[in-house]
Amino acid sequence: MSTVTLPAGAPPGAEQAMARWTRAAGQSELRRMLSLTTRPGLLSLALGLPAPELFPREAYGEAARRALEDDALSLQYGPPYRRLRGQLAELMRRRGVDCREEQIFLTAGAQQGMALLARLLLEPGGEVVLEEISYTGMQIVLEPFEPRVLTVPTDLETGLDVGAVEALLEGGARPAFIYAMTEAHNPLGVSLAAEKRARLAGLARRYRVPVVEDDVYGFLSYDAPAPPPLRGHDDEWVFYVGSLSKILAPSLRVGWVVVPEWMTPKLSLARDASDLDVASFSQRVVSNYLATGHLEEHLPVLRREYAARRDTMLAALGEHMPAGTRWHRPPGGLFVWVELPEGIDTGELLELAVETERVAFVPGHAFRSGAGLVRRNCMRLNFSNCDHERIRDAAARLGRAVERLGHFRQ
Amino acid sequence: MSTVTLPAGAPPGAEQAMARWTRAAGQSELRRMLSLTTRPGLLSLALGLPAPELFPREAYGEAARRALEDDALSLQYGPPYRRLRGQLAELMRRRGVDCREEQIFLTAGAQQGMALLARLLLEPGGEVVLEEISYTGMQIVLEPFEPRVLTVPTDLETGLDVGAVEALLEGGARPAFIYAMTEAHNPLGVSLAAEKRARLAGLARRYRVPVVEDDVYGFLSYDAPAPPPLRGHDDEWVFYVGSLSKILAPSLRVGWVVVPEWMTPKLSLARDASDLDVASFSQRVVSNYLATGHLEEHLPVLRREYAARRDTMLAALGEHMPAGTRWHRPPGGLFVWVELPEGIDTGELLELAVETERVAFVPGHAFRSGAGLVRRNCMRLNFSNCDHERIRDAAARLGRAVERLGHFRQ
Repeated sequence: MSTVTLPAGAPPGAEQAMARWTRAAGQSELRRMLSLTTRPGLLSLALGLPAPELFPREAYGEAARRALEDDALSLQYGPPYRRLRGQLAELMRRRGVDCREEQIFLTAGAQQGMALLARLLLEPGGEVVLEEISYTGMQIVLEPFEPRVLTVPTDLETGLDVGAVEALLEGGARPAFIYAMTEAHNPLGVSLAAEKRARLAGLARRYRVPVVEDDVYGFLSYDAPAPPPLRGHDDEWVFYVGSLSKILAPSLRVGWVVVPEWMTPKLSLARDASDLDVASFSQRVVSNYLATGHLEEHLPVLRREYAARRDTMLAALGEHMPAGTRWHRPPGGLFVWVELPEGIDTGELLELAVETERVAFVPGHAFRSGAGLVRRNCMRLNFSNCDHERIRDAAARLGRAVERLGHFRQ
Repeated sequence: MSTVTLPAGAPPGAEQAMARWTRAAGQSELRRMLSLTTRPGLLSLALGLPAPELFPREAYGEAARRALEDDALSLQYGPPYRRLRGQLAELMRRRGVDCREEQIFLTAGAQQGMALLARLLLEPGGEVVLEEISYTGMQIVLEPFEPRVLTVPTDLETGLDVGAVEALLEGGARPAFIYAMTEAHNPLGVSLAAEKRARLAGLARRYRVPVVEDDVYGFLSYDAPAPPPLRGHDDEWVFYVGSLSKILAPSLRVGWVVVPEWMTPKLSLARDASDLDVASFSQRVVSNYLATGHLEEHLPVLRREYAARRDTMLAALGEHMPAGTRWHRPPGGLFVWVELPEGIDTGELLELAVETERVAFVPGHAFRSGAGLVRRNCMRLNFSNCDHERIRDAAARLGRAVERLGHFRQ
């Protein structure tokens, strides 16, 4: 009855049975390159990993134990966990957003929030507005829709070019949505200037074009409290995406979106079509954790430590990077965007750095959206995952790799 | 900075900003009717809920505790948890399927398995083959694709009409996939005859048309061990969907698919586009649980108790249903499909049963696919969630509701 095990490889006709988008997406040079960064034994600054030693493991263990002991339904199918929605509405108030529990929709991380909103807003082949350099997670969400991507530039000090968005809309473009990362942009590390937030929210309202606002770093501002997000300026056309992955722990997969109440049944349809809109055990554990109030003390600890790691990295870059290298001090988030001198190709640098120095990062052109700008000389460095010693070590290795590349190319 | 809270209701232009499929899906009469079954205080036979008192809560608590204590990475982003893939490959061998760990892809429940396969196989507006009476979860998965649904009948003793599938394929149809539920069909409670399994797998291979095989009840056979599923007959064109939701607990959201190895990177693309293909805490907890070997003793307990509840329900139906009512004894799964005498509309019956007897079920026409057969006189009853006493009580209430409906309609 059992079948013969064949070697890997699609039988004749099988790849043709796949939807078209899978053929384009699977062959990306980018994915091949990124797979370099996951080799074992690397000192990696590539991914957006939080510091695991800061995860509140004990408090979680206790929250999980209570979910199992106190609540017979914690393992059963059930409606999205209402208490958690209320707790997240409260958290949003601390972020400068006034919203009600009925406007909170629970998701499996921010990625699912973006995916569900794309499912609701975007027709196959439709149009979206992204920054020229934009978070890869959203680009991956969009792949199956094979959309037409309109791009706008980003200013490294004030964020997304709202004037360029206005020009597109004035010119008649009516995209399914505009994707914006207001706080500590990934990968650029810039926050959208407060006056630009009001202006972008106003454009969304005036032209009736939704903004999908990705605020996963909204609680990780290091130098001053973050100003309210776009959702603080408009509650009808801004759809907010949040997550606990960066401030509590990623693998619990708990995120949320804030939308007008009339949209939550539609999100529920989209979630049912994706993985069923049922309460997960994680929702209860996270809710138990939030109920202890531990987050109040946890956030300042995270901010203090990540700010210190950022500063360590900036100092180490100053020491080890060649003259002509530029970066801005990111006001929050997990990344520094580094521009190396023109002529250095960070794709080549990555291969060399992995081979010779066992250090990894993400080349800037990995974040290129649509037919946007290619930045061959840029790279994104993560500063949250390594301790100070390893950050300094990684910067030294990177410096040596840049130097080698110079020799190598002469 | 905060916004004024408006009453629910979309602003002008907002609903038009939604993708077309959301407008059709949101207005379904079916959803309105099903919302009846979730009213509080009902004795409900409507949903496919396992018995919560049989969840291995203690063993889970211990598994969660160990995941947090022993493994620093249990809360971090990470690749899909390899040990669990190996354990599920082993479980598949006990199901009569020879597969390797590399052919197992982890999902958030069976629903996500079906959703990811649909994403890989189906173009928007494409064609699929479903049974005329088919699991609603798959139909919900398909909604955003707005597919053309070709339907085939189901025999209540031998399952899906494989001859009808052959006729479609011979006639030139080349659907994106055929959806089949081989073991304990939901809602019909029939298992596909062994010889039909071999024949359907052969058709898939011959015509190069994939079958998505939903086997979530494959480990819940009560009268005899279930024969191997379709995936036991073909490993290239049968894509198998499994889940731990029915045999362990739903809210951990752990399922898997078995596919040819060349497809797993494509599934990973589709999962990244949905919620990121990262290890969840649940995967580790479930893996710890499976490592204890507890499932070996747990499955016979489940089978024994669910079989007994089925028998209690069949006996109670015999006692309380009117003459002319028909059902088959389901060989496994969680449901009995009941045909009431012609002329009884189970949609009307549901409204009456909820109002007057506080008992709920799912009317048969909720499962109608495409332009398939409407069965107004049928209903699906769940027997796993209630204890014996409540099952007898529910059947008595249903009997009274049917009687009332008779009076009411005269």
